[in-house]
Amino acid sequence: METEDYGIQCFPDASPPKWHLAHTTWFFETFLLLPHLKNYRAFNSRFHELFNSYYRSLGHPYARSQRGLLSRPTVGEVYAYRRHVDTAVEDLLALSGNDPAVTEILEWGLQHEQQHQELLVMDIQYNFAFNPLRPAYAGFRAPARKPLDRERPESFAWIDFAGGPRPIGAEGEAFSFDNERPRHIAYLQPYALGQKPVTCGEYLRFIEDKGYGRPELWLADGWDQVLNQAWEAPLYWERQNGEWWHYTLGGMQTVDPDAPVCHVSFYEADAYARWAGKRLPTETEWENAVGAGSSWRHAVSGSNFLESGRLQPAPAAADAPLVNGLSQALGDVWEWTQSAYGPYPGFTPPRGALGEYNGKFMNNQRVLRGGSCATPASHLRPTYRNFFRPEDRWPFTGIRLCADRT
Amino acid sequence: METEDYGIQCFPDASPPKWHLAHTTWFFETFLLLPHLKNYRAFNSRFHELFNSYYRSLGHPYARSQRGLLSRPTVGEVYAYRRHVDTAVEDLLALSGNDPAVTEILEWGLQHEQQHQELLVMDIQYNFAFNPLRPAYAGFRAPARKPLDRERPESFAWIDFAGGPRPIGAEGEAFSFDNERPRHIAYLQPYALGQKPVTCGEYLRFIEDKGYGRPELWLADGWDQVLNQAWEAPLYWERQNGEWWHYTLGGMQTVDPDAPVCHVSFYEADAYARWAGKRLPTETEWENAVGAGSSWRHAVSGSNFLESGRLQPAPAAADAPLVNGLSQALGDVWEWTQSAYGPYPGFTPPRGALGEYNGKFMNNQRVLRGGSCATPASHLRPTYRNFFRPEDRWPFTGIRLCADRT
Amino acid sequence: METEDYGIQCFPDASPPKWHLAHTTWFFETFLLLPHLKNYRAFNSRFHELFNSYYRSLGHPYARSQRGLLSRPTVGEVYAYRRHVDTAVEDLLALSGNDPAVTEILEWGLQHEQQHQELLVMDIQYNFAFNPLRPAYAGFRAPARKPLDRERPESFAWIDFAGGPRPIGAEGEAFSFDNERPRHIAYLQPYALGQKPVTCGEYLRFIEDKGYGRPELWLADGWDQVLNQAWEAPLYWERQNGEWWHYTLGGMQTVDPDAPVCHVSFYEADAYARWAGKRLPTETEWENAVGAGSSWRHAVSGSNFLESGRLQPAPAAADAPLVNGLSQALGDVWEWTQSAYGPYPGFTPPRGALGEYNGKFMNNQRVLRGGSCATPASHLRPTYRNFFRPEDRWPFTGIRLCADRT
Amino acid sequence: METEDYGIQCFPDASPPKWHLAHTTWFFETFLLLPHLKNYRAFNSRFHELFNSYYRSLGHPYARSQRGLLSRPTVGEVYAYRRHVDTAVEDLLALSGNDPAVTEILEWGLQHEQQHQELLVMDIQYNFAFNPLRPAYAGFRAPARKPLDRERPESFAWIDFAGGPRPIGAEGEAFSFDNERPRHIAYLQPYALGQKPVTCGEYLRFIEDKGYGRPELWLADGWDQVLNQAWEAPLYWERQNGEWWHYTLGGMQTVDPDAPVCHVSFYEADAYARWAGKRLPTETEWENAVGAGSSWRHAVSGSNFLESGRLQPAPAAADAPLVNGLSQALGDVWEWTQSAYGPYPGFTPPRGALGEYNGKFMNNQRVLRGGSCATPASHLRPTYRNFFRPEDRWPFTGIRLCADRT
Repeated sequence: METEDYGIQCFPDASPPKWHLAHTTWFFETFLLLPHLKNYRAFNSRFHELFNSYYRSLGHPYARSQRGLLSRPTVGEVYAYRRHVDTAVEDLLALSGNDPAVTEILEWGLQHEQQHQELLVMDIQYNFAFNPLRPAYAGFRAPARKPLDRERPESFAWIDFAGGPRPIGAEGEAFSFDNERPRHIAYLQPYALGQKPVTCGEYLRFIEDKGYGRPELWLADGWDQVLNQAWEAPLYWERQNGEWWHYTLGGMQTVDPDAPVCHVSFYEADAYARWAGKRLPTETEWENAVGAGSSWRHAVSGSNFLESGRLQPAPAAADAPLVNGLSQALGDVWEWTQSAYGPYPGFTPPRGALGEYNGKFMNNQRVLRGGSCATPASHLRPTYRNFFRPEDRWPFTGIRLCADRT
Repeated sequence: METEDYGIQCFPDASPPKWHLAHTTWFFETFLLLPHLKNYRAFNSRFHELFNSYYRSLGHPYARSQRGLLSRPTVGEVYAYRRHVDTAVEDLLALSGNDPAVTEILEWGLQHEQQHQELLVMDIQYNFAFNPLRPAYAGFRAPARKPLDRERPESFAWIDFAGGPRPIGAEGEAFSFDNERPRHIAYLQPYALGQKPVTCGEYLRFIEDKGYGRPELWLADGWDQVLNQAWEAPLYWERQNGEWWHYTLGGMQTVDPDAPVCHVSFYEADAYARWAGKRLPTETEWENAVGAGSSWRHAVSGSNFLESGRLQPAPAAADAPLVNGLSQALGDVWEWTQSAYGPYPGFTPPRGALGEYNGKFMNNQRVLRGGSCATPASHLRPTYRNFFRPEDRWPFTGIRLCADRT
Repeated sequence: METEDYGIQCFPDASPPKWHLAHTTWFFETFLLLPHLKNYRAFNSRFHELFNSYYRSLGHPYARSQRGLLSRPTVGEVYAYRRHVDTAVEDLLALSGNDPAVTEILEWGLQHEQQHQELLVMDIQYNFAFNPLRPAYAGFRAPARKPLDRERPESFAWIDFAGGPRPIGAEGEAFSFDNERPRHIAYLQPYALGQKPVTCGEYLRFIEDKGYGRPELWLADGWDQVLNQAWEAPLYWERQNGEWWHYTLGGMQTVDPDAPVCHVSFYEADAYARWAGKRLPTETEWENAVGAGSSWRHAVSGSNFLESGRLQPAPAAADAPLVNGLSQALGDVWEWTQSAYGPYPGFTPPRGALGEYNGKFMNNQRVLRGGSCATPASHLRPTYRNFFRPEDRWPFTGIRLCADRT
Repeated sequence: METEDYGIQCFPDASPPKWHLAHTTWFFETFLLLPHLKNYRAFNSRFHELFNSYYRSLGHPYARSQRGLLSRPTVGEVYAYRRHVDTAVEDLLALSGNDPAVTEILEWGLQHEQQHQELLVMDIQYNFAFNPLRPAYAGFRAPARKPLDRERPESFAWIDFAGGPRPIGAEGEAFSFDNERPRHIAYLQPYALGQKPVTCGEYLRFIEDKGYGRPELWLADGWDQVLNQAWEAPLYWERQNGEWWHYTLGGMQTVDPDAPVCHVSFYEADAYARWAGKRLPTETEWENAVGAGSSWRHAVSGSNFLESGRLQPAPAAADAPLVNGLSQALGDVWEWTQSAYGPYPGFTPPRGALGEYNGKFMNNQRVLRGGSCATPASHLRPTYRNFFRPEDRWPFTGIRLCADRT
């Protein structure tokens, strides 16, 4: 990363890295230090608006689409801001000990920063892919790829789950966001999930079967996107001399047919499922499958999260840990569900500005589950609800199929 | 209605009346006559594209936003088209008797035309309201209004409903759309519904409490609408000399504080509920409350549907029929629910182009229930799922509050 | 023309026919009757804003782009408005005799209505061409066309004109617009004009030589238009089975290679001239060539103006009248000049709202000269300055080449 | 300037400083080195498209509006690029001596770089003004300001010039751009020019007289800008506590009533002139006044050009050099003329890609004359024709009035 890389914003949803660094710092300053640390002096009072993301109850946030137009503060000044706030947080902790009013906000601040760690990876990938010079973020080379063997037998397998009333959502003392609560009953029909996420090789068959040219496979809004955005393949994919390549944080690579397909929108996931004669799971179906029991806890360490340093999804390893029979349920790609993002029965947001954290976005978004190769491992749990707009493609998003069992 | 009124389209979603007349005719021609009536000759082969609404599997529909730019065919030619098709349908019925392949499509065609009857009323209202001359559609005058008595006691009442597993959706032989099926189990928490819809008088208190100026009450997308569209009141409302008026199909009228508030978006309904410390019901909560038993059947005839000729919601009559304790559950205003419009478990659309009828719109829409003053009475049933975008305000949309009971 | 044809507006610059009929009436009511006829009662006071085109000093004109969204007043009401005003004008004339304050405005009103007669033809053509049914406006059939003979010899001829100081602009008592005055001296270099306008056959060679694909031939703004609007030929041209057709008011016709090319923008005229190694004339070069002497007066009656009823440019007739050696200098097509539309030295607009008539548009427009097949013959004179934006193509616009002579 | 300041682009017309540095280098590489220096190796072949501004004949320029989205090449790499090209140019000069094919392009390259020196100043000002932190570019403080004395007598003076045929344009060996040639005769009426440019104090009277609220003062396109852009004062002006401030490269300063008004569009200049009962000069009137004789040569050194280091216009000094009676004719502010930018009679652009330098922009632009406080002094001459769109305000643009003398 060069200094120049910290400042750019190649589309309105991808913030400059510098902004992420400052905003996560602002979060601690605003929610933790100003209310709780006596005599705390803000680093720069103008930052209060500049690095507010969207909290309307805290004033007028600086326009999201113009974050890349601020050359000041410089990267150096932003790091000084971070040091200033880090020091003050340490002072506060030394003073307040285990005051739950402090530790609760501290926990939110850390969770918030983990979310921005993933956004940083997403945004850097988008910004670099946008540059015709296609710089690589990291020095690693991709492993040698097997050529796509179109003759080999389908290895697709289904894992069945029973129906009935099932508890969904978080409970207890461990941290979870407000949107994961309260725990409540959902009623499921019997169903099956694909044993692993849809691979690039499988998705290529959809492309080759003219999936992007058949309106009957798409939701109306999705088809509008296909036409307006001229979608022909997942984001970052390019065909060169008859071969598919894609931009990764390691630079341009050939597409690995065995890796999970990634950077597809909800519309593409949905169209793929319809093409395959299947559907996407609901978020309750997903959570019921993955969250039952404790096998997911053992699978975390063997999964492809941010800590693997790979920064892209990987083919299923032969010895990959299974979660109730499912492979790659955690990490690699966020799995689109068909569930619109909404409140659980009895949902109550926190009081004050943190009440804007999740609830105000419960509109025109779809839930994703399971984490990705850019998610910190400690951030994920089976009740975790991620959400994006159905047209979004720059997160590490993939597909797991679902089928009715009756 | 003058000839000129049949051709205009004042925003992309409101089609010209002439287009509705032609499109509903096209529906019978395309789905019923061309496949089933031997030797049927299309009235004009160019109409196949001109009056296709969105069925991609039938070719390239004429651009929706440009429907108001077609002076030809004339109104007279469209009526000739209708006579041509009506005659042919009668011929077909004489020939085919009770062939279910025919009667099923015929039923869809009739239901489809009923939907457009409501759209016609909505669109005419929008188009007339747009004209600075504010022509009235119908000759009736509004009844004299009581002045808003802000001192009178709240008459708000709650009707409680128990929780547990509940059957939801349509079954059996009677007609229903694909999106109402299959019948399945949903699991509800105990809840209460407002005894009647929110009135204009109640909504005025939200306005006067600066509801349109407080971002904390709104979903993020809703607040963007408030700012971008400069919303300050429901659609068609105007303040003149300190008094609220609204455009109705009978012309400009003062707002009746006792009538249900109408022409509010989902965002406004949701913000109002949050301001009131309550929430919107889910569609399953609504259906469970209204659909249980058969009291809804008795309430139809006393409800304010299209047949009343009023074309606007009315204050609850003293002797209005109740449905399981609820007033105005049917007719008057479509009631926004918090439920995103999606497929029921096991949903299967019909084969062929009719499969595009409902399923392809299951994205970024919210379900509304109960029918309105512009809905034909015979079109409505408790399992009926209407849907609009959360920003839509030109349908006859209103609010019924819901509260948790635990 | 059907009633429905009077109301549509297929792009913002093309007003509905009904609007033209009402606006020209409004002009007499506003500038003539209200100030000069005692006790005159406006037909409808709301029309004052509805049919104001752009006179800011008279209040807030109704939005230009929304003229097609008004179903009321109806066509019948607009004709009643015209009768009301016609009668009042006759009353005024009977009372005021030759009061110059009245006759001067009357003259402007008549000239103004003549301009709208041409706009009516232009706008009807645009609106009809927009309709996939492509209705014809008039019943005439085009004469049989000769096939394009690409082998026949070039018949292009130049007419030379000397340089030096030359008087330009109108003077004297006869009516002219403010923008044609005052008469003043311009200094010309020797030059030559094409004997006749560029023909469709000549323009086809530019198309076939990939003129629409070579950026070096175009002004920067013109090239942006070519790319953004996907221009490949003049407006209304379509290639069908290898042959060029164009929409005319008589319906679709094959392109006549001998007729002047029409419906080209300034950018296309300029690019064509550059491709031909020539340039467009300045408006002073054009006026000096056509206005000298009185031969133009004799040519009017033999020229293709509105009165010919043809409503499209025609090939040069063998016995066509010449103006100082030039063929088709009057009528057929407005000829783009390279001159930006600006004030003559000493230009003074009239006082009051009529001062907005011409002067306020002297920006980002180019001057055209000579009148077209849609211009009333009595409206035209050699000093007449028409103007359009360089991207406009819906007027009857053509090309006459110019060359330096030194 | 910090590294971060080199990369941002706050509106599409203001390129990032880094881009200017690379593009001016690209100009030498493309037009000088690649055709003329044998064995020259391009620094990076991808730069050929990245730093092409608009030369369509050289391929597909990188999109102008996205220049701020390129974090690579870094500032350091751009400087390396400059060193690489500088060295090669020195090599070429050593080899080619006085080969005119080389020195002519070299001259264009140097003139081109001077133009970008001014653009750099303009763009940096825009980018800094955009940042809510309002950083200063340079360390200097503004001198103390006199308060605005509204009572003091008008000091406005006119300088008269005679009419008749006058030579206009460049000739001879000294460098000039193609658009300044050929020298030709223009015919002028007698006229007078304001002795000095319009001052901020004078312009404030226009503001206070509601100049921005009176449509009759504005061209139609200008009035649209006033409404759409909510113009209320020149660019960079802000009212704080009843006092006018403006952003300068030295930071926020109070407006000096004696300094020439700056950062006004052509529309504002034209409206001001109309308000004052005067008009803007034509470019020939300006050139005839300033270019006659040689007094302009003596005035250069005492004028406020880039070399003064002031970077903003200054009040007229008591001992300021006059040019034929005019004060501040050179430097301080570019003076809008009423002349549309077009070709002189007999204009011929250079062959090849340099032919795109000036000619292709001769559309919808107005000519400005005289140079500004950001123009290198050696770049300016009386025949020099600058041009901008009539709505542009970020150049250092001002007003000199003109009056007819008859």
